[in-house]
Amino acid sequence: MKKYQVVTSVSVLAIVAMLLLTVSVRENKADQARIAATPEIKAFEVRSSEWGRHYPRQYSTYMQTKKSDAFIDVLGDLEPGLVINWAGYAFSKDYSRPRGHYYMLEDQAVTLRTGAPDPAKGIPSPQPTACWTCKGPDVSRLIARDGELEFFTGTWDKYGSEVVNPVGCADCHDPKTMKLVTTRPHLKRAVDASGILKYDEATQQDMRSLVCAQCHIEYYFKPTEWTDKNGEKKVAKVNTLPWDKGLSVEAIEQYYDEIGFTDYTHKLSKAPILKAQHPDYELFRTSIHFKRGLACADCHMPYVREGGVKYTSHQILGNPLDSIGNTCLNCHHDSEEGFRAIIKRKLERKYELAKQATVSIATAHLEAQKAWELGASEEEMRPALMDIRKGQWRWDFALASHGSFFHAPEEMLRIVADATHYGQEARIKLRAILAKYGAGDYVAPDFSTKEKAQALAGIDLLKESREKTRFLNTVRKEWFNEAKKKGVFDPQGEQDMIPFISAWPVPAEDGSTEKAPMETKAAGEQTPDRQATEKL
Amino acid sequence: MKKYQVVTSVSVLAIVAMLLLTVSVRENKADQARIAATPEIKAFEVRSSEWGRHYPRQYSTYMQTKKSDAFIDVLGDLEPGLVINWAGYAFSKDYSRPRGHYYMLEDQAVTLRTGAPDPAKGIPSPQPTACWTCKGPDVSRLIARDGELEFFTGTWDKYGSEVVNPVGCADCHDPKTMKLVTTRPHLKRAVDASGILKYDEATQQDMRSLVCAQCHIEYYFKPTEWTDKNGEKKVAKVNTLPWDKGLSVEAIEQYYDEIGFTDYTHKLSKAPILKAQHPDYELFRTSIHFKRGLACADCHMPYVREGGVKYTSHQILGNPLDSIGNTCLNCHHDSEEGFRAIIKRKLERKYELAKQATVSIATAHLEAQKAWELGASEEEMRPALMDIRKGQWRWDFALASHGSFFHAPEEMLRIVADATHYGQEARIKLRAILAKYGAGDYVAPDFSTKEKAQALAGIDLLKESREKTRFLNTVRKEWFNEAKKKGVFDPQGEQDMIPFISAWPVPAEDGSTEKAPMETKAAGEQTPDRQATEKL
Repeated sequence: MKKYQVVTSVSVLAIVAMLLLTVSVRENKADQARIAATPEIKAFEVRSSEWGRHYPRQYSTYMQTKKSDAFIDVLGDLEPGLVINWAGYAFSKDYSRPRGHYYMLEDQAVTLRTGAPDPAKGIPSPQPTACWTCKGPDVSRLIARDGELEFFTGTWDKYGSEVVNPVGCADCHDPKTMKLVTTRPHLKRAVDASGILKYDEATQQDMRSLVCAQCHIEYYFKPTEWTDKNGEKKVAKVNTLPWDKGLSVEAIEQYYDEIGFTDYTHKLSKAPILKAQHPDYELFRTSIHFKRGLACADCHMPYVREGGVKYTSHQILGNPLDSIGNTCLNCHHDSEEGFRAIIKRKLERKYELAKQATVSIATAHLEAQKAWELGASEEEMRPALMDIRKGQWRWDFALASHGSFFHAPEEMLRIVADATHYGQEARIKLRAILAKYGAGDYVAPDFSTKEKAQALAGIDLLKESREKTRFLNTVRKEWFNEAKKKGVFDPQGEQDMIPFISAWPVPAEDGSTEKAPMETKAAGEQTPDRQATEKL
Repeated sequence: MKKYQVVTSVSVLAIVAMLLLTVSVRENKADQARIAATPEIKAFEVRSSEWGRHYPRQYSTYMQTKKSDAFIDVLGDLEPGLVINWAGYAFSKDYSRPRGHYYMLEDQAVTLRTGAPDPAKGIPSPQPTACWTCKGPDVSRLIARDGELEFFTGTWDKYGSEVVNPVGCADCHDPKTMKLVTTRPHLKRAVDASGILKYDEATQQDMRSLVCAQCHIEYYFKPTEWTDKNGEKKVAKVNTLPWDKGLSVEAIEQYYDEIGFTDYTHKLSKAPILKAQHPDYELFRTSIHFKRGLACADCHMPYVREGGVKYTSHQILGNPLDSIGNTCLNCHHDSEEGFRAIIKRKLERKYELAKQATVSIATAHLEAQKAWELGASEEEMRPALMDIRKGQWRWDFALASHGSFFHAPEEMLRIVADATHYGQEARIKLRAILAKYGAGDYVAPDFSTKEKAQALAGIDLLKESREKTRFLNTVRKEWFNEAKKKGVFDPQGEQDMIPFISAWPVPAEDGSTEKAPMETKAAGEQTPDRQATEKL
């Protein structure tokens, strides 16, 4: 093609583009006018279907989070070594890949991590109320009604019939203006304390990440003494972000070390362990995608076009590769096949280093257990246990983060490599101790399957599953009925939930023939359940 | 700006661009016509100044490689742990950052690694002739004259008065057509054997990397028996690329393992070590830059513009960041400051993991040495020594590669993390052995300075430096005079070399007052000098 032809073509294309833009702007303007004319939605409207009457496109895409419905038992199908590293903590019982937002309440009810509470019999959940923090718009309603400290006091079962609608419109939008807002008090406090930005000056693009960062972050439940209106002394476990010293894996570790925080003492090694939640936002901030100005929503809630209308899809994509043409390939100009081949190789690197770290740390736990059995002293063990703590913190920080590898591949490889390094440092120290006690050639037992690993961790999966089944068929059904009476239940959610609840098998009298949730692969999601507050 | 204004502006800009292009094309065409009219340059014209008479822009930029003249003593200024890892190998004596291509012959003469040969006294260099392979266009001339097997037979000093012009025009260009060509037989053989591409079908863009890959690769000197024309049996050490099984760090290791190759037995640990050369091309091929179609020349020899003429700069940039506006920022649309900040953080990650690997492997060597001293058996030591071999191979592969971190950051982090993992695996095994022999609490000696590390490695730096100084003032000067008589010396090179050679101090009778090259920081470059062929 000659050069003048290029010029002519460019001009023609530009004119066509201008015309198309004009049409599009007109349609978008019509849409905006409709939004402006919409009657205000009432404060604390927890029923997303109510919002959906006015915003049908956003609502119907939001409801598509239902499509991400695959149960993947991470402990069984992907990495049994996790069971060893989490021995003594609820995650060692049950940990599945997160499913769509739509399922978050059901998955939290089903997971073995929340236990089988029965208030009538005085059996509480092993988890605090704080585990509800991210589950849905009822939380903001309850904090407004009961106060933040009351909300964070007690065990998970306390709000079983109150938090009944999964994360929805009210969690991220102002009902009057539709503007993006954050509704959880912990985030604003942490943003301001960390100095990463001034919360009140956050841009729209900042908000397109911050609404996600209400939950997709590292946090802990800070024990906080308070006195209620009746003068009763209570301890709340307040959801708190450990960002005062920075957002890096090392800065957060320093925060925890300085306040002497530990999530749990490891059942096998007795190491004081920090459990990472899902520091997605923290890792994302280290990435080139963040530095180039992207927000979470750019890839996880891409713009879609229906006729002349362009809007943000609310089918929050756990994996933007599932809509690759709408997300990655917008900027990465490659064929889908070519792009996927690059990603595949990147992920192989992650799996390789992650596996090393998991195995190194799990082996260290088992070797430490052996050293204790042989009579090693606390003084002898302490340096190795502190290495295990450091290694496991890094390992968990990198792996617990959803999609950390996409968010920040180099940072994740660094952190996982550091994890292995500390795990191996622990093992070098433990090898000397084992040798001292006559077991220099000790070989840690096999933990290559979930069954073997859970046996080593002392977990009775069948017992846990049976109790859970009973809970789902009794207490959980009662919560459901109570919620209906309270009228806070989204009718759409109710409609969807009835078949779900009916699906649970009725336990046999002797428990022998019942089908336990874990056996049917009905596993839980990635809810935090940290509560231990033991000192280092 | 209104949309119709945008369209108008685009059109005007396109027209202006077209006019500019026309002017530029005209000037470039004039340039091309001049090239076409240039008399042919003779075959094996080793004098780059002769080529430069016809291609002044390329030649004058080529001569600017002289600007990269900083001596950086890596062992002393950056990482003394290298001395430990290379103990028993020439690199432990002396290793400096590579300088500009212009200096490659001088740097090879100066480095302690080539020793102080004195043919008149029957003292050979410790290095084979193969060390000349990449040093300049005289090599192709000698291979054509003497035959490849004769060229690769004997010690380095054999061609001291023959290889006298540093890498230049004839190494990469056909003298008749100016087309890019490779002139070293090892590359074509390896490319065809590896199947990465068909050499005879290489595109111009392939060639813009392959000419560099003649030297910027991993290789070894393959012992090859042959009989000369007089019936004398000889063994050549032929420069060979270990690519038959692939170009990854693991595939090349497999190649070496299968032929039982070892570069040297480690002086302290007795581990059978593989020394990586500089697998730049291999690592580059794993990178996103390569996958996006870039060639070495795109960043290291960027296009420059002088008036209306655009040409490839032949000032080969060791670090494209030194000309960031002409290289990185062409594609990475960022401010220089912003871009450098991103690079800085990326490099910090590399340094962190590289340091871990260096220290882990060096410590393993020293711990193994202790275990031997205490009476450990070969059978006991073998598993740990094989871990050291694997770890050090990965460590060296990643770090010896020039700029590996820019070429392939994720691949490099993976490899270095693997290196640490193997180093630590060795240390776990060694700890059990040490404990068995009563030294479970053994702490390896300090190697935090070059002096301490070289003392541990048994290097007499002053003696080596004095011998080198004598060599430079006697044998090396004689080589220079012989080369002048042979008439192959580029007059421009000669002019530059006289002050260089005169700068060497004359040694005192007792050697006590002379200034040794190492003391004046006149260190060497990154020439391979592998020669050990011991079996595993």
